[in-house]
Amino acid sequence: MYKIGMIGAGSWGIALSKVLADNGHHVVVWSIVEEEIQMLREHHEHLDKLPGVKLPDSIEFTTDISQAIREMDLIVLAVPSVFTRSTAKRMAEYVAKGQIIVCVAKGIEEDTLMTLSDIVEQEIPAATVAVMCGPSHAEEVGIGLPTTVVAGAHKRETAEKIQDIFMNSVFRVYTSPDVLGMELGGSLKNVIALAAGMADGLGYGDNTKAALITRGIAELTRLATKMGACEETLSGLTGIGDLIVTCQSRHSRNRKAGMLMGQGMTMEEATKEVKMVVEGIYSAKAALALAKKYQVSMPIIEGVNRVLFENEKASSVVESLMMRDKKSEHSTLEWE
Amino acid sequence: MYKIGMIGAGSWGIALSKVLADNGHHVVVWSIVEEEIQMLREHHEHLDKLPGVKLPDSIEFTTDISQAIREMDLIVLAVPSVFTRSTAKRMAEYVAKGQIIVCVAKGIEEDTLMTLSDIVEQEIPAATVAVMCGPSHAEEVGIGLPTTVVAGAHKRETAEKIQDIFMNSVFRVYTSPDVLGMELGGSLKNVIALAAGMADGLGYGDNTKAALITRGIAELTRLATKMGACEETLSGLTGIGDLIVTCQSRHSRNRKAGMLMGQGMTMEEATKEVKMVVEGIYSAKAALALAKKYQVSMPIIEGVNRVLFENEKASSVVESLMMRDKKSEHSTLEWE
Repeated sequence: MYKIGMIGAGSWGIALSKVLADNGHHVVVWSIVEEEIQMLREHHEHLDKLPGVKLPDSIEFTTDISQAIREMDLIVLAVPSVFTRSTAKRMAEYVAKGQIIVCVAKGIEEDTLMTLSDIVEQEIPAATVAVMCGPSHAEEVGIGLPTTVVAGAHKRETAEKIQDIFMNSVFRVYTSPDVLGMELGGSLKNVIALAAGMADGLGYGDNTKAALITRGIAELTRLATKMGACEETLSGLTGIGDLIVTCQSRHSRNRKAGMLMGQGMTMEEATKEVKMVVEGIYSAKAALALAKKYQVSMPIIEGVNRVLFENEKASSVVESLMMRDKKSEHSTLEWE
Repeated sequence: MYKIGMIGAGSWGIALSKVLADNGHHVVVWSIVEEEIQMLREHHEHLDKLPGVKLPDSIEFTTDISQAIREMDLIVLAVPSVFTRSTAKRMAEYVAKGQIIVCVAKGIEEDTLMTLSDIVEQEIPAATVAVMCGPSHAEEVGIGLPTTVVAGAHKRETAEKIQDIFMNSVFRVYTSPDVLGMELGGSLKNVIALAAGMADGLGYGDNTKAALITRGIAELTRLATKMGACEETLSGLTGIGDLIVTCQSRHSRNRKAGMLMGQGMTMEEATKEVKMVVEGIYSAKAALALAKKYQVSMPIIEGVNRVLFENEKASSVVESLMMRDKKSEHSTLEWE
């Protein structure tokens, strides 16, 4: 039995808290929102973000962040990516040397192009920072549907500790040393999900969407490997796996926002309609900046940016992707 | 304008005939079934296999196979994989030295473990054999939804000729020299689609299915690369792309058969219900034989075989896949 601090009470933080409590760990959930903590204490359920999922009575809830950090064996950082830096600043003074912080959100900071683990390492130098992601909609984890994720850390012992703590018969945890590859895949895939959503909104079929997903992961792989990540990671659960789940799922906000743009809405109209944070819109700019910095050709990322920020129609972007030059699928393979 | 012979009048042969005729080529479609040819001549539509798709008047239909071979600039072989050898035998005497035959079906012959292009090369030594596949449901190609495929041949000029003939604004053709990788991906993916269908039938969600797809392509990649194929091909349109479309699509018979087994039917009951040929059931045995021959660990392929041929319940297979040892995602990556 471990003591776990959960920083953030969104749908993913709540679903993971349930996994941990079901595994017999003592979980303390922190949120900055007083009413949210009151509701969780009263109902043992997040009525807005994960309705229908009853939480074990053993879970504690607090608005005092130090209570979810001090003496914890593991801290899970589950706030949306845009709040990662501010939350890390708030956490820093309570974190002891070597305490493990697992980032479970995904994103690239727009101004600095840093990943979330970079940000946490910068703000909390005392911590041992790790990540965990994979194809895992909170709604499904909450009701115990079989799910696989990857725990990534620079040291094997860190990753294996996270694996031990989270793993059970319906929540399978692999380990990986490729933290960078996991974070790039996890955050940039949301941009491809926007493109896949646009294709759905335009009334295209499975063929078009599969092509966008496949060519999309190829783009992300080109960028990530140039930045030092491993190709295997992008072909794995946190790369193509996560991309598939995001592009196909009825739960995905990124896909939904893309769909609305495919049907003709502007970016502003679509985000208003979706209501929740659409990570892919933030990541799109970062992806484009990284593509330029590392000089990688990323036609789908570029097209999505034109729809988001230059008012180009989604239909014209998808058409231009289809009409590019006649090409070999992989420029590296040799002919007889 | 080229003269094209289409051998086979199933849904894929008919959809491709429409693409070719729309591109201005003269197409001659052959079928062994007299009534099928009569229907096509009369209605310019395949009422059973591709209803609603009107074919251009320019297409000719014949039961005389020599008419779809002699003097043709390109021959497309679109019969189901189980009829590939018998059809190739029938074609052989009419094929001129160097005539290009493009195999567009997928499969591995159970007894010989040969791919379809191997079979055609063996039966028709005069021919130049190529392949074409990718994420492409005939139903969507028939109505002009944007689709991407890959033309594979040992020589670049062969692949580029096929690309020139087929490519248009909604049918994008890439080229590749990795014929073996394309054929292995295209045929073995049907077995993974059976597993994904089983997960659907068991009521599991997107997380489980994405995990099966991702771990499934990893298995196929291990086998294919050991056999000499290129990893890129399995990460491309004819590998993961085709697998995604098959696992997600409402059109896929493999997925449907798997779903019925997930709901508790035996293999025999499921195939009776689906009515059409379920390629994955043939490929499952071949995949297992290849795994043994090349000594590659393929737990999903093995599990599907146990459901198909040893009456193990789909639920117990999916559970055993989830409950395997705690593992690193990629055994090849190094830790600090």
